[in-house]
Amino acid sequence: MPILNKDMTLCISLAARPSNIGTRFHNYLYDRLGLNFVYKAFAPVDLADAVRGIRGLGIRGAAVSMPYKEAVIPMLDRISPSAEAIDSVNTIVNDDGVLTAYNTDYLAIERLLLEHRIPVTSTVLLQGSGGMAKAVAAALRNAGFGSVTIVARNSETGPALAALYGFDWLPEVAEHHAQLLINVTPLGMQGADESVLAFPLSAIEAAETVFDVVALPARTPLVETAEALGKKVISGAEVIAIQAEEQFVLYTGVRPSAELVREASEFSRAES
Amino acid sequence: MPILNKDMTLCISLAARPSNIGTRFHNYLYDRLGLNFVYKAFAPVDLADAVRGIRGLGIRGAAVSMPYKEAVIPMLDRISPSAEAIDSVNTIVNDDGVLTAYNTDYLAIERLLLEHRIPVTSTVLLQGSGGMAKAVAAALRNAGFGSVTIVARNSETGPALAALYGFDWLPEVAEHHAQLLINVTPLGMQGADESVLAFPLSAIEAAETVFDVVALPARTPLVETAEALGKKVISGAEVIAIQAEEQFVLYTGVRPSAELVREASEFSRAES
Repeated sequence: MPILNKDMTLCISLAARPSNIGTRFHNYLYDRLGLNFVYKAFAPVDLADAVRGIRGLGIRGAAVSMPYKEAVIPMLDRISPSAEAIDSVNTIVNDDGVLTAYNTDYLAIERLLLEHRIPVTSTVLLQGSGGMAKAVAAALRNAGFGSVTIVARNSETGPALAALYGFDWLPEVAEHHAQLLINVTPLGMQGADESVLAFPLSAIEAAETVFDVVALPARTPLVETAEALGKKVISGAEVIAIQAEEQFVLYTGVRPSAELVREASEFSRAES
Repeated sequence: MPILNKDMTLCISLAARPSNIGTRFHNYLYDRLGLNFVYKAFAPVDLADAVRGIRGLGIRGAAVSMPYKEAVIPMLDRISPSAEAIDSVNTIVNDDGVLTAYNTDYLAIERLLLEHRIPVTSTVLLQGSGGMAKAVAAALRNAGFGSVTIVARNSETGPALAALYGFDWLPEVAEHHAQLLINVTPLGMQGADESVLAFPLSAIEAAETVFDVVALPARTPLVETAEALGKKVISGAEVIAIQAEEQFVLYTGVRPSAELVREASEFSRAES
């Protein structure tokens, strides 16, 4: 039987093409933690009316996905540092009608760089120049990483992202090496590029840590190669789990245990 | 585990003080009929923004309760005959962004008068002059009942309601009799008036049919007395079940069996 009741707090997601991942992650934790919350994904018909609906219906929080992450900014009341750092919103929190913007992708990158104790003196090759690459670049800059090179074939977005944070730009990795390799491109993910190794083998061999930000749900050639070579590996699954955990904490005020987050993350990916 | 998924259609209710009745009724039927719908009650923070949210989020339907039944009218696109008959909305249906107003209380009264085969030539005493009395008066008038007397102590709303539908008005029942007695006051319901018999015993004895519109959840002295006297009885539970069934049909396009409606109605009242 459905467990809904009149006092449940609703959290939602707004995405042009919703997945079940967030719905399953949050509802799993609500259930396990006995919170009177429920989570529902929406493909909004009109973004402005959907945001008014968050206020008017008293919806507690909303995850924001493509293509609304920038468009939603002028509709909100407060922009937290995480959203301001990259001018992009993936989370809205409604405190009695005051809507605050957050970006938990940024918070997740920030936390992973800390938790994996990556020295800020590391040289970094960051491959990609889209929204998520911007989150990574901002987190690196704000954490104090100084020797970062943006690698992007796109000769407009690549140099622009590098300039924004005072980093260098290269159109391709070629023979360049670094202690930290970060991939934020679809290279190696399911689809046409799934057999592509995002960095040259020589670069992986020379690195200490490999971070494949968007490698979900597939284990990419980059992740497998880096593991086989005994490198420290940070996966996209960790980014997604942590960004969802941070959303969960913002909505509910409750921080689930690492074990519960791991369970919820696995559950969320079991069917999507 | 929660059964929510990204493709679920959401229906909601808007009420200053939500109950669990609608939530339980609709979710019970969604579950039993295998419909990918979910129902959630809301106490809106702002009615206009909530209605924008129905459009913006693509919410399929909304039940409307006190105190929003009239205020919501200018926010909607189309007013169906059932809502127009009494200038009051208890149901909104969203067809691809076009919001249509219905009043399923009106539809339920209309259907009960038909199903119980009450002759339109019956004399009627209708006690009450609020919103639900208006629904009953309109249904009586539109069904062709001609000999109706509104009984209401309130010397403003009573005569006004009678005048609206071309009926008579009396401040009290006194020695008046009729074939159909209808109570739309709180007399006999749980609370201060729960031991009050809404009509004099002599009027009940003289009647053929007794209809206690708002007698929920209590079995009122009126219902019990009428049953003891072998009168035909129509209860408020029937009104609530039928109005909810009509909402369900408007939202889903599926008409549940009478047996399922009875089950859902019992389930909805088991905890509220």
